[in-house]
Amino acid sequence: MSELTKPLTSDKGGGLPRVVIVGAGFGGLHAAKALRKLPVDVTVIDRRNHFTFQPLLYQVALAVLSPADIAQPIRGILRRQTNTEVLMDEVVGIDVQARRVGLASGMQFAYDYLVIATGATHSYFGKNQWAPFAPGLKSIEDAIEIRRRVLLAFELAERQMLEHGWHPPLNFVVIGGGPTGVELAGAISDIAKLYMRHDFRHIDPTKARVLLLDNGPRLLAAYPPDLSAKAERELFDLGVEVHTGSNVTNVGPGWVEANNQRIEGAVILWAAGVQASPLGKMLGAPVDKRGCVLVDNNLNPPGLPEVFVLGDLAHFEQDGHQIPGVAQPAMQMGDYVGKAIAADLAQQPRPAFRYFDKGDMATVGRMAAVADVKWPFKAHLSGFPAWVTWMVVHIFFLIGYRNRLAVISQWIWNYFMFTRSARLITGDQRLPGWQDQIDAGPSPQEEDRTAAVR
Amino acid sequence: MSELTKPLTSDKGGGLPRVVIVGAGFGGLHAAKALRKLPVDVTVIDRRNHFTFQPLLYQVALAVLSPADIAQPIRGILRRQTNTEVLMDEVVGIDVQARRVGLASGMQFAYDYLVIATGATHSYFGKNQWAPFAPGLKSIEDAIEIRRRVLLAFELAERQMLEHGWHPPLNFVVIGGGPTGVELAGAISDIAKLYMRHDFRHIDPTKARVLLLDNGPRLLAAYPPDLSAKAERELFDLGVEVHTGSNVTNVGPGWVEANNQRIEGAVILWAAGVQASPLGKMLGAPVDKRGCVLVDNNLNPPGLPEVFVLGDLAHFEQDGHQIPGVAQPAMQMGDYVGKAIAADLAQQPRPAFRYFDKGDMATVGRMAAVADVKWPFKAHLSGFPAWVTWMVVHIFFLIGYRNRLAVISQWIWNYFMFTRSARLITGDQRLPGWQDQIDAGPSPQEEDRTAAVR
Repeated sequence: MSELTKPLTSDKGGGLPRVVIVGAGFGGLHAAKALRKLPVDVTVIDRRNHFTFQPLLYQVALAVLSPADIAQPIRGILRRQTNTEVLMDEVVGIDVQARRVGLASGMQFAYDYLVIATGATHSYFGKNQWAPFAPGLKSIEDAIEIRRRVLLAFELAERQMLEHGWHPPLNFVVIGGGPTGVELAGAISDIAKLYMRHDFRHIDPTKARVLLLDNGPRLLAAYPPDLSAKAERELFDLGVEVHTGSNVTNVGPGWVEANNQRIEGAVILWAAGVQASPLGKMLGAPVDKRGCVLVDNNLNPPGLPEVFVLGDLAHFEQDGHQIPGVAQPAMQMGDYVGKAIAADLAQQPRPAFRYFDKGDMATVGRMAAVADVKWPFKAHLSGFPAWVTWMVVHIFFLIGYRNRLAVISQWIWNYFMFTRSARLITGDQRLPGWQDQIDAGPSPQEEDRTAAVR
Repeated sequence: MSELTKPLTSDKGGGLPRVVIVGAGFGGLHAAKALRKLPVDVTVIDRRNHFTFQPLLYQVALAVLSPADIAQPIRGILRRQTNTEVLMDEVVGIDVQARRVGLASGMQFAYDYLVIATGATHSYFGKNQWAPFAPGLKSIEDAIEIRRRVLLAFELAERQMLEHGWHPPLNFVVIGGGPTGVELAGAISDIAKLYMRHDFRHIDPTKARVLLLDNGPRLLAAYPPDLSAKAERELFDLGVEVHTGSNVTNVGPGWVEANNQRIEGAVILWAAGVQASPLGKMLGAPVDKRGCVLVDNNLNPPGLPEVFVLGDLAHFEQDGHQIPGVAQPAMQMGDYVGKAIAADLAQQPRPAFRYFDKGDMATVGRMAAVADVKWPFKAHLSGFPAWVTWMVVHIFFLIGYRNRLAVISQWIWNYFMFTRSARLITGDQRLPGWQDQIDAGPSPQEEDRTAAVR
């Protein structure tokens, strides 16, 4: 690998084992923290400067929370951990023989242990040309872009109503009925029906339609069937139109084709599939069809005991099932890395990793959720009790007291005041009409209008 | 004007006088609120969906506050004001004869009264090619971009130190010693010397230099000389290097040329000049050299009693002095529009506008400020008392209880905890090294470095 021919630049001396952690998500950060008291030198490499609390990302996308409420500078999280340094850079090559990683900056890092926890990104199942028309939700930038599109859709409808006395249907189409799709659909319904009620003079935002398309027979396929049914019922009560068995065959600007029907969408969001980060493949180890690295019960790829693969990037099977790509297993895997390395240092055999599943949950709008609780007791919760459980759990896992306080106070405020002050359009402020004119040249229709006006 | 040939699309009937307000800053919003009980139809047009509390924008740029803390959706502010509608659009033409404005969308609006309050933007004194190297601070986007550059500068220095054992001087150069320049310089010094202390392993952020360049003989030229001297003293105590009498003759990527000396800057910020929004010139009325519209004591341009020009866009002289382009006069001018239109409706003579100056203030870092108080008592304050006054006044004028609570709690948190969780890099995450390589091709200097690295 030609990127890796450069001499090492980062040898700090000292001779302690060097642990390089790539990716500061739930898995990477938990691994770093689990190593804080061990005699090792830790380097955390991430291409962003902040950790993102992904389970609440949809609330940034729908203007409930601000980016800073759910993101935290990685340096801030690890500032007091003296055996750990943070580097903002991107890994572009791994040489497992020489035990080095190559970075986008040109630097190289030798490792004694390598922890890869770079997660997953959206998958359009080979149709990447759909991406500009139906953005997905994985980063703060994605959330800001979705917020921009959703808020601009209302602005555009108001303008069109004023101009023509008519506007195209204000449809919000969410593709994919997993937890993210369900949460997005519920939250869009909330914003339209509750929070925007008094804001417009020409349109009625409560008449916006929210369509949730899933190609399976039921929503939340990973949950028990009774909870899927409850989530559908709760979405129905919110006015969300759930279309299971919808096979999306094409997506274009402002439309989706599903089951040979064309659905117009003022905003289309993608929550249908994920694929592993490309770092899995750089290892040269076996991967599954989504690019996740097959790992043994020490979280190692075959033959690479010094490499750990965690979180969404790992394909780990337990009791015949692949464990899901959510925060809980990633955190437990991170913690496990600390135990495994401690065992090595003590020259003891490593324990085997075992995922302890406390359950799953997803919110459905402002006051409802479904929860498949497995610990400390077993229960299927729905509605308000599930929603309260969801809130408590998510506040608990947020990093930093300030964020917890900020999110709690923001939720209470939104809940009682029906206003959302995070409702900012930043970035490109142009309404879609102008954007077409400027970016893509006038469409035939636009040209007519322009000609008539100028 | 050819843009204005299209028939009106927005006549709501009812026959009430139509007031069109362009720009929802301090002036425009105060005008809208002052009209809330009058028998008029009000339309507020802004190209953004949010009001920005500009006096605190520098705190977003330096990661103290989040964008949503100081920005508020315009619709939210005016949602309960039933005689008022909000339109997100941009005015591209004004026909004062036909009393119509033309919008970027192609729509047109007739008015009986037109209120123009579109403010000002940066001026590079004809050197717009400097803009990419030295961004100014007028919008939320500007603040996010400055935040990105400042935070990336530290990340880059850490990486260079790790890679080469050396990094170029971590200089932050602020051009312009008015209130914005003083506030930016003080806040950068704070972030480097207090908030980043424990975050890096290879660089010492407290050794960053902050240079404040002004071409005049003293900072804060609009303030009394004793306060300028105090501000300089306070900046000196913070470690900011103040260079008055610095004539900037050129700005390029990473450097400033002033008084025939070249100063390297990891980040260069522009706070030196403003020019009026182009809407002033569209009126066809006389403007001053910065493009501000000369208005009489009814805030009308000559011969246009139905047009009011407010805030930074107005050139209004009182007692032989032009009143400054800050929030206070803009708000009072907005209020005045309500009184003037009420007088017209009552068929009374309009009162004359008179600016009531309560004083000026600027912060200098974390615990100091200068304030030229003129009401309710006269005093020149500096240091901590000025800073407390500044805080109280700014909290008071923030729009919305939630924002006030959020900002107070954020300030208290930052003050005691020495952490800033708003310290996010969003948008382009690449460090300058990569960015140059990818966006602009290597500069000669970059090329050398690249050659050495690869």
